[in-house]
Amino acid sequence: MTQTPPVINDPLDAFCKDTQAYFEGVPGGPLSGLTFAAKDIFDVAGHVTGCGNPDWKATHEPARDTAWVVQTLVDAGATMVGKTHTDELTRGILGENPHYGTPINPKAPGRVPGGSSSGSAAAVAGELVDFALGSDTGGSVRIPASFCGLYGLRPTHGRIPVEGLLAQAPSYDTIGWFARDAETFARVGSVILQVPVPAGRPSKLMIAEDLFEAAEGAVADALRPSLERIRALVSGSSSVRLTTSGGTDQSTAWAEQQNTLQSREAWVELRDWIDEVNPRFSYQVGERYHLAANVTDAQVEEAAVVRDSVRARLDEVFSDGGFVCLPTSPVAAPPRGQTLSDRRDGQSRILRLTCMGGTTGRPQITIPVAEVYGLPVGLSFMGNRGADEALMGFAIEIEKALAG
Amino acid sequence: MTQTPPVINDPLDAFCKDTQAYFEGVPGGPLSGLTFAAKDIFDVAGHVTGCGNPDWKATHEPARDTAWVVQTLVDAGATMVGKTHTDELTRGILGENPHYGTPINPKAPGRVPGGSSSGSAAAVAGELVDFALGSDTGGSVRIPASFCGLYGLRPTHGRIPVEGLLAQAPSYDTIGWFARDAETFARVGSVILQVPVPAGRPSKLMIAEDLFEAAEGAVADALRPSLERIRALVSGSSSVRLTTSGGTDQSTAWAEQQNTLQSREAWVELRDWIDEVNPRFSYQVGERYHLAANVTDAQVEEAAVVRDSVRARLDEVFSDGGFVCLPTSPVAAPPRGQTLSDRRDGQSRILRLTCMGGTTGRPQITIPVAEVYGLPVGLSFMGNRGADEALMGFAIEIEKALAG
Repeated sequence: MTQTPPVINDPLDAFCKDTQAYFEGVPGGPLSGLTFAAKDIFDVAGHVTGCGNPDWKATHEPARDTAWVVQTLVDAGATMVGKTHTDELTRGILGENPHYGTPINPKAPGRVPGGSSSGSAAAVAGELVDFALGSDTGGSVRIPASFCGLYGLRPTHGRIPVEGLLAQAPSYDTIGWFARDAETFARVGSVILQVPVPAGRPSKLMIAEDLFEAAEGAVADALRPSLERIRALVSGSSSVRLTTSGGTDQSTAWAEQQNTLQSREAWVELRDWIDEVNPRFSYQVGERYHLAANVTDAQVEEAAVVRDSVRARLDEVFSDGGFVCLPTSPVAAPPRGQTLSDRRDGQSRILRLTCMGGTTGRPQITIPVAEVYGLPVGLSFMGNRGADEALMGFAIEIEKALAG
Repeated sequence: MTQTPPVINDPLDAFCKDTQAYFEGVPGGPLSGLTFAAKDIFDVAGHVTGCGNPDWKATHEPARDTAWVVQTLVDAGATMVGKTHTDELTRGILGENPHYGTPINPKAPGRVPGGSSSGSAAAVAGELVDFALGSDTGGSVRIPASFCGLYGLRPTHGRIPVEGLLAQAPSYDTIGWFARDAETFARVGSVILQVPVPAGRPSKLMIAEDLFEAAEGAVADALRPSLERIRALVSGSSSVRLTTSGGTDQSTAWAEQQNTLQSREAWVELRDWIDEVNPRFSYQVGERYHLAANVTDAQVEEAAVVRDSVRARLDEVFSDGGFVCLPTSPVAAPPRGQTLSDRRDGQSRILRLTCMGGTTGRPQITIPVAEVYGLPVGLSFMGNRGADEALMGFAIEIEKALAG
């Protein structure tokens, strides 16, 4: 099945240099003519899945099987040209990997590409491939899509089989993908979800004002003109405050509960390997595992209570269907090489916007609608579970409307 | 001053491959004919001091000056042939560096060499050099000397200038060295301390029975026959229990106070660099810095109270002079590649025997007197501040007596 791979033109340092997994697409399929790449957490038979950490790579055997989603795309005609860089073991949101370098963000030179699906986003934004696979546990597709000016989806949790890829925190892990335009995005989505993806509009749109307030003023301001044009596409629109309960802002507690629960799961996944291998990590990733190791059962129980309240609140908001609109990220892509203190602050702030998708398992699409200081920023729409194709259909409508 | 270096024969992976700092000794000095190596935390003008971490190396300029002790040895006629591996930033006691590998312990194949002065100990034990420089903050000379069957000294704190080497925790940092025989050891010591080092015996010997009990039974048993022969060299000998106070064993509290205070100092030294660089560390070293970052002022104050009680207790024990005898390490060299859990356990146990030297600033020499299961184990003697040359002189007497 694997043919001799062509040399990849990679001025962005997006691709893994030591593993070129190449699959020619099966002729005649719906994705014929498209090329793609996959984050190096997706198994390809015969290759070691490196997961962005050299000690992981050195302590694992080549994959026996190819991940379901990769095989499905190749069977549908798309040609896989290679594997792309990721934050170490998907534990990052900026895309800076000290072992393998930081892919260049072609839409924001000098800035990070976002992560953890960093190389996939860079490769698509830089037109090295037509689309690319990533994964989203805490924002790892949505954030790099926003930073690189791309379409990206965190799908309904559990809808796309995650066989054959690295688990970070199973309750949160999803497969997502990137494309530069809504049509290509939907074409790929139709194959992965195995359903048609027609253009369409939601019954109503709920603008999450509190989350716009949580973003940098310049980001919110940059998104609003497009938001007004998008609002005009929908018959009913309203404002909503998601994170305000009893007059107090819950957004920090909402982010913290996901951080606690996701950390515990991530620790359970990796603790044996860490104990066995004493792997090298960047200080920050090591710190995250150390913190995760020290999450107590009491903290988990407390976080689960908050999680349930988040779910209840969003069930209430979404009780009549429709989409919630929010900024994908509170900020545009930060500079490369920030201090750890600045990284930690930025990541906490980002999680306040990304945690709703993870916590409730709802699908969320991000659409590149604006720029701030010349840097891309994305606008997100979230729907009920199973609304993935409706979100992609709406993205098609939005793309048309904003181009017009 | 630097000449073209000869190729080092290094079957033990003891030497840094990318920095061969070579200095030919000044002819005619007291160390003429001896070769030595220095742990890669000692500055040599024109070379970057790597300190066992690639991100440290990448973010530092070449040293402007050569460390005082290196220059002093070269001026005395010794030829420096290269720099040797260390645990990352001296933060380890086993000598396993995931970036640069683990030097082979020529006296205990399959076992670690001990650290953090790992390459220096291996190079001396394997007869690649006549002596080598290391540093000892929490045991980093004493432990590899014990594991590799060498003479090693932690000198009186503050007696040897530490200009030109990496600071780990300044209240504890000392320069030490290794040799295979007591005569060479004393010859080097005489140059470094700039005093004569005659053979000699202490007025009395105090056997720390509680510390022998803290060692593995097989280690204590292996040391006792030599101890009996050494005891016969001294007119007065007695038993003492150092860590028992009011009927309770304080050894865990004694080790913990040094861990707390040393960690705080180590964090103060490196926190800015860590924040700036987000360096790669092995999981365990990252964890140690993370723990260090979280040491509270209250913990520091509490530890300082215990530290003062350790000092008072040892002042009392040493009030009439003499040497205290203790096992250098509770164990022989452990296997390479232990799990993190096993490493942590072993290191805690080791610190219970090494913390007295660091906490009181007293000099401690370790002498290779025995083997257990074919693996070297060292016997230590500790004296009052300034007793360094007397300890080396006693080592000469012991070497003669045990050879006889």
